[in-house]
Parts: sequence; structure tokens; C-alpha cells
Amino acid sequence: MTSKVAKTQVPIHELVARRWSGRAFDRDRPLERVQLIALLEAARWAPSCYGDEPWRVIVWDRLQDESLWRKAFECLGEWNQRWVKNAPVLMLTVADSVFEKNGKPNRWGQHDTGAAGENLYLQAAALGLMAHPMGGFDADKARRVFAIPEQFAPMAMIAVGHPAPAEVLEGEYRELELAGRTRKPLGERFFEGGWGTPVSA
Amino acid sequence: MTSKVAKTQVPIHELVARRWSGRAFDRDRPLERVQLIALLEAARWAPSCYGDEPWRVIVWDRLQDESLWRKAFECLGEWNQRWVKNAPVLMLTVADSVFEKNGKPNRWGQHDTGAAGENLYLQAAALGLMAHPMGGFDADKARRVFAIPEQFAPMAMIAVGHPAPAEVLEGEYRELELAGRTRKPLGERFFEGGWGTPVSA
Repeated sequence: MTSKVAKTQVPIHELVARRWSGRAFDRDRPLERVQLIALLEAARWAPSCYGDEPWRVIVWDRLQDESLWRKAFECLGEWNQRWVKNAPVLMLTVADSVFEKNGKPNRWGQHDTGAAGENLYLQAAALGLMAHPMGGFDADKARRVFAIPEQFAPMAMIAVGHPAPAEVLEGEYRELELAGRTRKPLGERFFEGGWGTPVSA
Repeated sequence: MTSKVAKTQVPIHELVARRWSGRAFDRDRPLERVQLIALLEAARWAPSCYGDEPWRVIVWDRLQDESLWRKAFECLGEWNQRWVKNAPVLMLTVADSVFEKNGKPNRWGQHDTGAAGENLYLQAAALGLMAHPMGGFDADKARRVFAIPEQFAPMAMIAVGHPAPAEVLEGEYRELELAGRTRKPLGERFFEGGWGTPVSA
């Protein structure tokens, strides 16, 4: 696997630093069931507003059911299909828009689902796997094909598998796999005291 | 600090397992600057849709400016104020609703901000700190007081500090601090193949 550790001003936990969204998957190596469940358990223990656990995750394991995996795969955009074809597992995170306990609007449903997703990606990194979340899929199609109720919003399709060398990818994908990771300067996103004042390190 | 490790069917990474949202903070122990920056760096390296980094975080360090910290504190609901009063640092995560690169709606803004938040909470756990996200605050007041533009949604106020024994809390708060952590059964939130089919471990 290509290693791309985050460049930070001060040290951060190695798990957070080395998680990244690669595209080179080993197409011949399925996930063990215990690995798959560990990813879901990590997501399950994320925090949520009023403890409502507004996330849902649908899993498609190619090893269990190739045709269902393919139905999920076919919701992806063409750009993503060209590398996701090697991923043994697909997942979709889905966010509830109302609180389960009282049916009122939950404005944190998508936010909390993102937190659960991050736990899942980090757990993948902890197991030597790679989890790559994608926005590039047809959410309406996913809703139709998998009967997702209107109350829920499909958020991210996630490709999961064992990483492989960048050489399994072609052209532009391989270049992306080997390129450095970048983020905007800290002060452009992180403020102190009020809006727009860059935090100083 | 009260230890409350997640109960899981299979092992998960210890950092994910032991992160939890406590309320007992050590009021006499401020954050070191290097710790505060580490939390932000962890958030900074979260994944985001099309790499837009739609999150913003505002930090209020009581040690730097008590009056600004208080303005943030006063946005909290009364229930939260009664324990947050001991937290040396407050933060607010804010989600962009449009893509910076093209001004089009970003339906993953809140989702990705939740992922960045989770990295921040986990980094706190890694440093022996505690970060407790809250939905219980007046978002309109926060927007007004800190001049947050309409395009952005205030998501979570976060209390950060060094943990203290549960005994610093009173009554109901102390009970909550000592109570076991719970989550819904895996199959209620995690499905396989399609909507509503519980995943089997």
C-alpha cells in the first residue's frame, strides 16, 4: 500500500495521520467477516445528538452475493466504477432526518452519520484495510434499487478492501495514488475567538 | 477519568473503543497550545467530498481570552452550562452549504464536518483529553454573536479539557458519568444487501 502520512505542525495520532482514501485494491483478497463487523462496530460507537444513532449502513459483500454487490456498484459514477471494480466490499451510509424517539426533525442526522463514517474509515486503517468514501454515485437510483425510505438521505458510498500497489491502477488513477496529500492551511479553516480570525499555532 | 470502553462483538481499535463524551472536567488544568493545535490538525485531515474541506472550527481558549470564552459559553443551554463551566476550551464546528470551488450546493457539508469532528474527538482521547460535542446550544445566537455567515450551519459546540473524577459532578450528572455506555444492537442500524436486513456477524 502506498503510505501517505499527513503533514502536520504538531504530531497527531498515527491512525488519524495515515488514513487516506486510496483507489488501489487487491481484487483477489476478500474481507474476513470479523474485519467487516469490526468496521461496523467502530461506526456504531460514534457519538450522536441525544444518542439517537441516526446513521444506517448497508453492506454489500461480493463474496456473499455478487449480484447484490453489482447492483450497488451500478449506482456509482463511471469515474468511480473504473477503480471500485476491484473492491470486495461496498457500503452506503444513510442519514435519518428525524429523531427516532420523537419523530421531530434531526438537524444533526447527516453530521452524526459523517462521524460514524470516520470511525469506520479509521477502523479500516487500523486493520490494514482501506475504506474510500465517495459522493460520486446516483443517490436516487440507490434509493430506488434498495428501497431506502424518503426520510433517509444516502450520504456516501464506501469502497472497502485490502490495499494493493499503485501499479494495479492505470493512467490518471495511478498518478493520484502516488501524488502527495494536501489540505488548506490551518488558518483558512480553523479560527480563534470569532469568525475568520486564523488560529495561531 | 472514568473509563468506559465500548462493548463490541469483535475487537476494535482501542482509540475508537475508549472515546466517550464525559462531563467531568478538571477546571484548574488548561490545554497546552500544542494539544489544542493537534486537535485541529486531526480535524483538518478528515476526508471530504471533492476535497472541499467544508468544515470550519472556531476555538475559544479561556486561557487566551476569558470574555470571548464566556460569550461562547452563553450560547449553551442551561443543562450544558452546569457542567461545561469547568471546561477550559470551547469549540464550534460549522458546515459550509456550498462548494468553495464553484459555489454550487454541497450536500455533504454537514456530513464531512461530522467526520472532521470525530477526528478531533479521537485526537483528544489520544492525548488523554476529553472532547464532548453538544447539540444543545442556541445556533442563531452563536451566528449573531460570532458573525457566522448565512451560508454556514453551526453544528456542534464542543467542550474540551482534561478529564477529572466523576466526583467533581453533582447529582444527575455524576450518575450519567458513571453509567454504562449503550448502543442499539448492531442489526438495528447496519444492514446487508438491502434496506432493513440486519447484518449477521
